[in-house]
Amino acid sequence: MAMVELKEKKEFKELKDIFSEITHLRGIRRLLSWDQETFMPKAGEKNRANQIALISTLIHQRLTSNAIKEKLYSLLEGINTNELDSDRAELVILREWKRDYERAVKIPETIIKELSYKSVIAHEVWVKAREQKDFNIFLPHLSELIKLTREKAKCLGYEDHPYDALLDEYEPYERTRDIDELFNALIPPLKRLYEKITERLKRKKRPDISGKYPIERQKALSQIMASSLGLKNPSSRIDTVVHPFSTKIGPGDVRITTRWNERDFTEGIFGILHEAGHGIYSQNLLAEYYGTPLGESVSLGIHESQSRLYENIIGRSKEFWEFFFPISKGIFPDGLSNLDLNSFLLAINWVEPSFIRVEADEVTYNFHIYLRFTIEKELIEGSLSPVDIPLKWNTLFEELLGLKVPDDSRGCLQDVHWSGAAFGYFPTYTLGNVYGAMLFEKAKEELPGLFDDFKMGKFRTITRWLGEKIHSQGRRYRPKDLIEKVTENKPTPSAFLDYLQEKYRQII
Amino acid sequence: MAMVELKEKKEFKELKDIFSEITHLRGIRRLLSWDQETFMPKAGEKNRANQIALISTLIHQRLTSNAIKEKLYSLLEGINTNELDSDRAELVILREWKRDYERAVKIPETIIKELSYKSVIAHEVWVKAREQKDFNIFLPHLSELIKLTREKAKCLGYEDHPYDALLDEYEPYERTRDIDELFNALIPPLKRLYEKITERLKRKKRPDISGKYPIERQKALSQIMASSLGLKNPSSRIDTVVHPFSTKIGPGDVRITTRWNERDFTEGIFGILHEAGHGIYSQNLLAEYYGTPLGESVSLGIHESQSRLYENIIGRSKEFWEFFFPISKGIFPDGLSNLDLNSFLLAINWVEPSFIRVEADEVTYNFHIYLRFTIEKELIEGSLSPVDIPLKWNTLFEELLGLKVPDDSRGCLQDVHWSGAAFGYFPTYTLGNVYGAMLFEKAKEELPGLFDDFKMGKFRTITRWLGEKIHSQGRRYRPKDLIEKVTENKPTPSAFLDYLQEKYRQII
Repeated sequence: MAMVELKEKKEFKELKDIFSEITHLRGIRRLLSWDQETFMPKAGEKNRANQIALISTLIHQRLTSNAIKEKLYSLLEGINTNELDSDRAELVILREWKRDYERAVKIPETIIKELSYKSVIAHEVWVKAREQKDFNIFLPHLSELIKLTREKAKCLGYEDHPYDALLDEYEPYERTRDIDELFNALIPPLKRLYEKITERLKRKKRPDISGKYPIERQKALSQIMASSLGLKNPSSRIDTVVHPFSTKIGPGDVRITTRWNERDFTEGIFGILHEAGHGIYSQNLLAEYYGTPLGESVSLGIHESQSRLYENIIGRSKEFWEFFFPISKGIFPDGLSNLDLNSFLLAINWVEPSFIRVEADEVTYNFHIYLRFTIEKELIEGSLSPVDIPLKWNTLFEELLGLKVPDDSRGCLQDVHWSGAAFGYFPTYTLGNVYGAMLFEKAKEELPGLFDDFKMGKFRTITRWLGEKIHSQGRRYRPKDLIEKVTENKPTPSAFLDYLQEKYRQII
Repeated sequence: MAMVELKEKKEFKELKDIFSEITHLRGIRRLLSWDQETFMPKAGEKNRANQIALISTLIHQRLTSNAIKEKLYSLLEGINTNELDSDRAELVILREWKRDYERAVKIPETIIKELSYKSVIAHEVWVKAREQKDFNIFLPHLSELIKLTREKAKCLGYEDHPYDALLDEYEPYERTRDIDELFNALIPPLKRLYEKITERLKRKKRPDISGKYPIERQKALSQIMASSLGLKNPSSRIDTVVHPFSTKIGPGDVRITTRWNERDFTEGIFGILHEAGHGIYSQNLLAEYYGTPLGESVSLGIHESQSRLYENIIGRSKEFWEFFFPISKGIFPDGLSNLDLNSFLLAINWVEPSFIRVEADEVTYNFHIYLRFTIEKELIEGSLSPVDIPLKWNTLFEELLGLKVPDDSRGCLQDVHWSGAAFGYFPTYTLGNVYGAMLFEKAKEELPGLFDDFKMGKFRTITRWLGEKIHSQGRRYRPKDLIEKVTENKPTPSAFLDYLQEKYRQII
């Protein structure tokens, strides 16, 4: 079928309208969530749950409507499956519409409703359980969510492993065996590297960067940094929350958040650098495609590759701080005055086993993910019973990081994901690390003088390169294919391992 | 038909579900607007227009659906028209559902969509036009909105005057001739009073209250005042905007806004007192009726009666400031230290012709409204062309207030309403003044010792009284009937005129 025809077809235009409406509803839902985390009065919680549930239902109804089905299959008639692998706009859009429809229609509305309602309740219980360090409070709710999620996986279907069906929601086309393979290639060498680094660090003392860092000044500095990296100002904003996140309300409206620590400015700043990475990706998605899959981010793994690249590869590099350290010293005379650049770099790149994932360094971080992935997989296949999570967690944790978990709040209760039934999400964090390093390796090759730019506080070249190669592509390629196309390599952890090796060779 | 039956009917329950969904969509739309005025990044404007237009369309589709029609008329069968005048919950709900359905079904979806989208754009143009003091920038957009609004009025239908159809949206069951009558009874005696007052003021000098009022302290004071009046804290919030407003996102979530002036704290404070009046009304609507007309405010006139009562009748009274003036002096040593209470009262009640409505005193304020009502009426009936608005405005203004309008920003470009196609809204401000005075006159009669309470910073009695008589009634009675029921008087401006006369007799 000629492309011109497809684009001009009545059904194509009508589908565009329906999916555009779905996209707007999703943007509205994101505003409802953003507001809940930032400014909503406490007593508005129940009302907000009702509003979000309503929008979710409207989205699901549209996504599974006969209107979509009829138009979609009428367009698909006479198109070969391999034609859908094309990267031409209309065919990509059609392929991804098909994917979205076929996923949505497999899940009965009852499961959607039950999961959405029960995870609101479970979230509240989780908050309490975590405060009281008592997994048993959370257990019945978690068990129920796992039961429903296993049903959901069954409805969605899978070839090898029920976890495939869940993973695919966050990382399209990715399979459990790919993640197994990834961790098999990553964990053993990472463990060796980790032991080598910590051995060498034994001879050093972690430099103390605690001091007085007025929050207003942290905000000013973080605004400057985010803008330098490429977060456009009149179309974004930064707010304060308990759990940092970024979100896109629509074209021209991307919002990032962080939390501030008056004693340690790096907490807020690295939050900003991370979320700015997400924000820049969201901003660079092409506005003219908003409402179609070509205007959407391709996966959480690719999203995370951007945030990790800006936060860690750029944001913890010597060159970045050669520019920003003197500025920071000027802004925070009561915090950094007695510190030199090398000590500061050692502090922000210090490697040490710790209990909390979101506070982990770049090396140990992936052990945290591997642990969660292992547990999730077993929960979903049914070989691990929810009641046994703490024991499994603590055993695995000691094996991987050599520490005894003192309580469940510093163990299996620390993350928000399970209370929202987001099983299958965690592996995308490690994918992000791996993809980010691969992309940066390629960028260095294609963009000579990149580090000289960083030293002068210039990040336009890398951001423009990522914009062209990744951000503006939307869902044109499958995540893995996108990485392969850009880096000319199949995804493996070697670039990430090389990056860490080289970094710590220089720092210690 | 027995009441029990109606409530238990399948159709009644199903209608409740549909209208509950509509209510949630409206709450969501209000959040979208609130966010636009407070925190939305500038570049998100077009996306926001699309989001608001979508929600408006969804509301309109539901409101005009056959599902409502069938269930509604099936329930209405066998109910006499005069039964609908009952104040029993189910019959009230049915009566107001009927009203909402019959209004909505008359307006074609295309007009809803066009008006909603175009007014978001027109709003931005108006902001620019006002900045540049150039009506011509705004004119084409305004003309388009007026054209669409006249079409809308035609679709809605009317007995006497096309303006009836518009007024009825903001002040249900009110007619243009009622407003004409009101102004005929109000304007001449008000003009005589105005002349008397300004004559007496000629012998005085307006006390200067300008000084240094740190914004953070203004915020703290306004939070204390709003709470004393009865705005509940964990279910509300206060933000800073260019044009103050209040809004209800849903039960437990009411938001008010103001603007601050570092040289004059009364600007922000009276904004807060005004919006707190709206907010208290919104909070006191019964949560158990949320989603039905009994959980909704009855009209903008009644809404404004609450804000004006709190802002002016209470907030500019001697008794209110007998409590708050010493506190304010303590909070603002660099602002109020050289002032006594009587001078302060004279300053905040000073009467003087001025260009800007929202800055006008209680006496001249209604001349501003009368002017807008006159112009709107002629625009809608077609006897005034949009291009002639500035001339008409300036001529009328000089007649009423004796001042030559220096530019359109201080003339016909000053108000936000027309950029949102809110024709028919303005008269509700004067209704608010008139109703507020009537209600307070009655409250004084029924609640002896009210002013002694005020002197001690206590406002619970009046807020509880208004809560019982007005707020908790929702749309149980027609606005005028509600006033008549509570005050045992037909609405006339005499209580308002008496109130002003008495106030200025005491002050000057």
